[in-house]
Parts: sequence; C-alpha cells; structure tokens
Amino acid sequence: MPVSAQLPFTVFNKTCPSRLVLEHVTSRWGVLALGALLERTYRFSELRRRIDGVSEKMLAQTLQTLERDGFVLRVAYPEIPPRVEYSLTEQGREAAELVLALVCWVEQRMPQIIESQQDRDAKRQAGQAA
Amino acid sequence: MPVSAQLPFTVFNKTCPSRLVLEHVTSRWGVLALGALLERTYRFSELRRRIDGVSEKMLAQTLQTLERDGFVLRVAYPEIPPRVEYSLTEQGREAAELVLALVCWVEQRMPQIIESQQDRDAKRQAGQAA
Repeated sequence: MPVSAQLPFTVFNKTCPSRLVLEHVTSRWGVLALGALLERTYRFSELRRRIDGVSEKMLAQTLQTLERDGFVLRVAYPEIPPRVEYSLTEQGREAAELVLALVCWVEQRMPQIIESQQDRDAKRQAGQAA
Repeated sequence: MPVSAQLPFTVFNKTCPSRLVLEHVTSRWGVLALGALLERTYRFSELRRRIDGVSEKMLAQTLQTLERDGFVLRVAYPEIPPRVEYSLTEQGREAAELVLALVCWVEQRMPQIIESQQDRDAKRQAGQAA
C-alpha cells in the first residue's frame, strides 16, 4: 500500500512525519539555502558566503537534510581539486518558490512590522511607567 | 525618514531585522499558530489543543512575538471568568496564507519525500556495507 493511501499527513499532529519535513524547509538555514539555490547552482563555499552567518557545519547539515528529502541535488565532479555543486531538484524548486514568496513578503512588509513593534514596545513602557 | 527609505531589507544579511521576523513566522510554533488562526479565532486553551505538542510557555511566547510583529490580535474580554481570544490581523492573515501554502504543499508531497528519504537511506546503507 503506498504511503499516501495509508493516512493523510497533517503538521498539526506532532508524530506526523510532515511536521519534520516542514521544519527542514522552514529552519533558519533551510529557508536561506532554498532561497539562494533558487538563484543558481552554488559551490559549497560560495553558498556559505551568500548565507551570511551560517557555519560550515550547519550549512553541511542543512544541505544533507534537504538532499535526503529530495529537494537538493549534490553533484561531485571528479576533478583536481574536487568540485562539488549544489542545485535544486524540481521538487526543491517548488518548495523554494513557496518559501521565497514568504521571504519577499516579509522583506516588503518590514516598515509596517517595525512600526507595529515600536508601537507595542512604547505601550508596554507606558504601562510600566504608569 | 521612514524606515523603508533607509535601506532595502534582506534576510540574507545576518544583521537585517527581516531575518528575525522571518524566523518568527517560520518557527515551529509560529507556523502552526498562524495556520490554526487562519481557520478561526481561538481561545488560548483551544489553540493549545489544536497545536499538538506545544507547551503553555512556548505558545504564550509565540503569540506574544506574533502580536508584537502586528500579526496576531489579542482581545481580553472583561468577564468572569476572564476570556482571552486570539485572531489574525489583516497583515497576519497575509503571512498565514503564505505559510499555509507551504504547509499544504509539504503535506501533499509527503509520499514523494518519504520515497526520496528511503532511497537515500538505502543507498547510504549499501555504501556502508560495500
């Protein structure tokens, strides 16, 4: 019986494997790796520079997880020095496009979001002073 | 000068405040809180039951963060016993719709994702046995 016939997947159930996969694509570095790889193919060190702040270890773990889920393709070319390139699979591209829509929305709405944060902080301070 | 005129926001820069906001909406409980509140208004205890596995403390922190960003509205009714309801603002609804698109995509693609994970694990085991 295929997995899809067994049960519907729902992230609201803590034991559903879909919750874990969602966490892979929404993790801090997962989001940024998918977003970057939507631009183009990257070598590891280039990708690390593109994703400001990521450690070598965290980027390697993130790429491995995304590769296992079938979102990222890792191609090692038999050259000297060795060259390894990362790109998105078709499935990874779909996930990345949805993630990037959210990223772009957040970036565009930052002025309103910052205003809301400042309002809220001012009210809280006023409340504490009173 | 309005914030929007000062600089473009980009989550790829580790000091950009947009990276933090993105983390609020993509955090484990942030995603699920936004997704649930897209269904309807919830009281705290109902929302906690809807989001399987969340602790009282984590849900409270998540809602407070989303409220500060201007995504969630918290209304306390002066009743006995006190009633507090959470809902989405217009801005929160937009964020939640983008988040939910990603959630639905992951849930629908789980059969292929699980297949990819199993393939990868089998190859890795075969590699280790060889």
